[in-house]
Amino acid sequence: MLVTDLIRRKRDGAELQREEIEFLVNGYTRDEIPDYQMSAWLMAVLLRGMSRAELAALTETMLNSGQVLDFSELPAAKTDKHSTGGVGDKTSLIIAPIVAAAGLYVPMISGRGLGHTGGTLDKLESIPGFNVNLSVADFRRVLAQCGAGLIGQTAEIAPADKKLYALRDVTGTVESPYLICASIMSKKLAEGIDALVLDVKTGSGAFMKSEKDAVFLAELMVETGQRLGKRVSALITDMDQPLGRAVGNALEVAECIDVLNGHGPDDLRELSFVLSASMFLLGKRVRSVAEGRELAEQMITTGKAREKFREMIRLQGGNAAVIEDPGLLPQAAQQTDVKSPASGFVTAMMCEQIGTAGVLLGGGRARKEDSVDPAVGIIVHKKIGDAVSAGEALCTVYYNSAERLANAAPLIEKSYTIAADALLQKRPLVHRVIGDE
Amino acid sequence: MLVTDLIRRKRDGAELQREEIEFLVNGYTRDEIPDYQMSAWLMAVLLRGMSRAELAALTETMLNSGQVLDFSELPAAKTDKHSTGGVGDKTSLIIAPIVAAAGLYVPMISGRGLGHTGGTLDKLESIPGFNVNLSVADFRRVLAQCGAGLIGQTAEIAPADKKLYALRDVTGTVESPYLICASIMSKKLAEGIDALVLDVKTGSGAFMKSEKDAVFLAELMVETGQRLGKRVSALITDMDQPLGRAVGNALEVAECIDVLNGHGPDDLRELSFVLSASMFLLGKRVRSVAEGRELAEQMITTGKAREKFREMIRLQGGNAAVIEDPGLLPQAAQQTDVKSPASGFVTAMMCEQIGTAGVLLGGGRARKEDSVDPAVGIIVHKKIGDAVSAGEALCTVYYNSAERLANAAPLIEKSYTIAADALLQKRPLVHRVIGDE
Repeated sequence: MLVTDLIRRKRDGAELQREEIEFLVNGYTRDEIPDYQMSAWLMAVLLRGMSRAELAALTETMLNSGQVLDFSELPAAKTDKHSTGGVGDKTSLIIAPIVAAAGLYVPMISGRGLGHTGGTLDKLESIPGFNVNLSVADFRRVLAQCGAGLIGQTAEIAPADKKLYALRDVTGTVESPYLICASIMSKKLAEGIDALVLDVKTGSGAFMKSEKDAVFLAELMVETGQRLGKRVSALITDMDQPLGRAVGNALEVAECIDVLNGHGPDDLRELSFVLSASMFLLGKRVRSVAEGRELAEQMITTGKAREKFREMIRLQGGNAAVIEDPGLLPQAAQQTDVKSPASGFVTAMMCEQIGTAGVLLGGGRARKEDSVDPAVGIIVHKKIGDAVSAGEALCTVYYNSAERLANAAPLIEKSYTIAADALLQKRPLVHRVIGDE
Repeated sequence: MLVTDLIRRKRDGAELQREEIEFLVNGYTRDEIPDYQMSAWLMAVLLRGMSRAELAALTETMLNSGQVLDFSELPAAKTDKHSTGGVGDKTSLIIAPIVAAAGLYVPMISGRGLGHTGGTLDKLESIPGFNVNLSVADFRRVLAQCGAGLIGQTAEIAPADKKLYALRDVTGTVESPYLICASIMSKKLAEGIDALVLDVKTGSGAFMKSEKDAVFLAELMVETGQRLGKRVSALITDMDQPLGRAVGNALEVAECIDVLNGHGPDDLRELSFVLSASMFLLGKRVRSVAEGRELAEQMITTGKAREKFREMIRLQGGNAAVIEDPGLLPQAAQQTDVKSPASGFVTAMMCEQIGTAGVLLGGGRARKEDSVDPAVGIIVHKKIGDAVSAGEALCTVYYNSAERLANAAPLIEKSYTIAADALLQKRPLVHRVIGDE
């Protein structure tokens, strides 16, 4: 097999065979195929696309490039949820306890903040002592004991993806739905799960701004997962404004504790319930989404999910007292309101800018090696559809640096559209469901 | 300027600015931009194309990456001809003497055989002693003295092209008309010429098999040359069968001597005359193609072109006695005929296979580092339209290795289509003319 032949065939729109994709990806992972050939192939894939069979072969090859966890000794279904990333998207911290409390297993391997979006690992690390860097043996022990564990990607999981992602990042080949699908699914399926629910975000705060792109990616991921023998479904959900009210690591943890205590914003509760319901359904814990939704709510009202979260924190080394006293979470030194310049109704938010404001405050990373300030962030008081008076607070900003505040605050104010008339129709929270039911 | 931004913009079909293309190409040539970014950009160019302004900027940047020769001290127009390559395409050895004999200058920088096609340098080197590796100073002296010189590319000419071509060769990015155009034109315009005639081949023995592709490349090259201030025209010429009868280095030199002596095959004579005529016209030596054609023929009938060739050979260190005695050229040890399996008419030839047969005999290179056997080759007796009887010789093969013959001979026989009925219409030698007149 000649690498140049494989590049040329993909370039010309031909379909590669499974063995050919294995040859390319394994050769690259073993440093036998140079970066410059792989980047040409990746660009050809980005511009030419892939068949579903090619995509499954690519995903499976990347999956098998490293360790694939096996939790078959655990006596119930292993399920997980993956989100394509958004602003204020903190459902993992609510869903993992809910689903584990109902008796399924959630071996969740998560990521850090990327661009304007937050990351589950950064949020968890705002809980004093919480350790996301467990060995596989410790992860297995935590899972067996409490049903859920949340860790970061290890070097052993999908090394092909790690190498390919680094190359894509510097060669303009990140934005291919095929390559995004293979990257996500190869990592998620390495968790040794039976079922996966995908939360594919669409709107001004999502990576996929258009619903069409989000649906296309969701369909690719669902079909790829199914081809690899898993039960998979995807929810296309709204990211035209932040989810919930909190944006920022410790602020988001506090909001999750609110939800686990039976309070918290409606949209965050609702999305956590429907995603949990899908996981229950795919994990065969219930027979319908309605039944699953009810079970999820029960886990909150009975306090079982909150207790599961307490157990998870404790087992991963964190201070579980934050559940009773969120004041133990890192606190920003100062706060200020961003006020509305006019009276009227909020009709739109440039949600990505809110996320970027959070990064500028120090809550995310401009560069990979930056550290994150867990305390800073934004509490969003006014969301789409809300009435607002001139001078009323749109958001409260929690900050530790006046300079950073000066960069972030204008972004927040400008992200709001205030109009005289209210919107006639609100965007639904869940736009569409794709896949297994 | 960020390289990834430039890759992404080209990937998305945007037009890059001149300074952006300069940044990329100069950065790459200076080893500041890595291969893996350049190959991704090249693949994006191949699949997205370029505007004419981008192509001119790319060509000019590659041209200016090295030495641009200046022969402005020479007292007449400097003209050259470039062919995109074919089988038995030996017109350079006839045209350079014709055009120089009529008083113009021909500073010709040529290449070696590539794939199934022959190369002017390999042909010249079959003349005992002929040196194609002149310094620029010696090249200048030869030109001033006899009006024509034929050398290989030096390390100083268009180094960006050399580096880019090596990368394209291993990343599936050779076959872009834009990249082919920039590669050819950057090297040719470094010769310090005023005018350039392009012989763009089309047919079964050409790189551009379809006339549409050949015309597109020709138009790109003509417009690019004109944008860079040169007079340029292109002839789309037939390569559905070998040009002339000889395929192989020494055999082709002998055929050129035949033409310079007023004999030789009609198609080779004709194409040499029309290409010379175009050079005369662009070099303002004549006022019409007809006048140019007449002048070219005169250079043959008066023997002036032959004497010019003799002078060229002598000045470049070769044994000019080959003109009187082609037997001084390398001779193959053995010869054999490939015979027709049937009676009828030749209606088609797979011309690339004839070229490949020549390579397999040892007349070309399978790998860059291979050496070439100057003596071997093929004399084609039957061409398209010819009547043939079963058992009659289609070709005579000149060889030095029975093993090589065994590989090459079947290719030749299979390349012929012999049909009961003759073709109604012959393809013209010159399909079309594009550009300056």
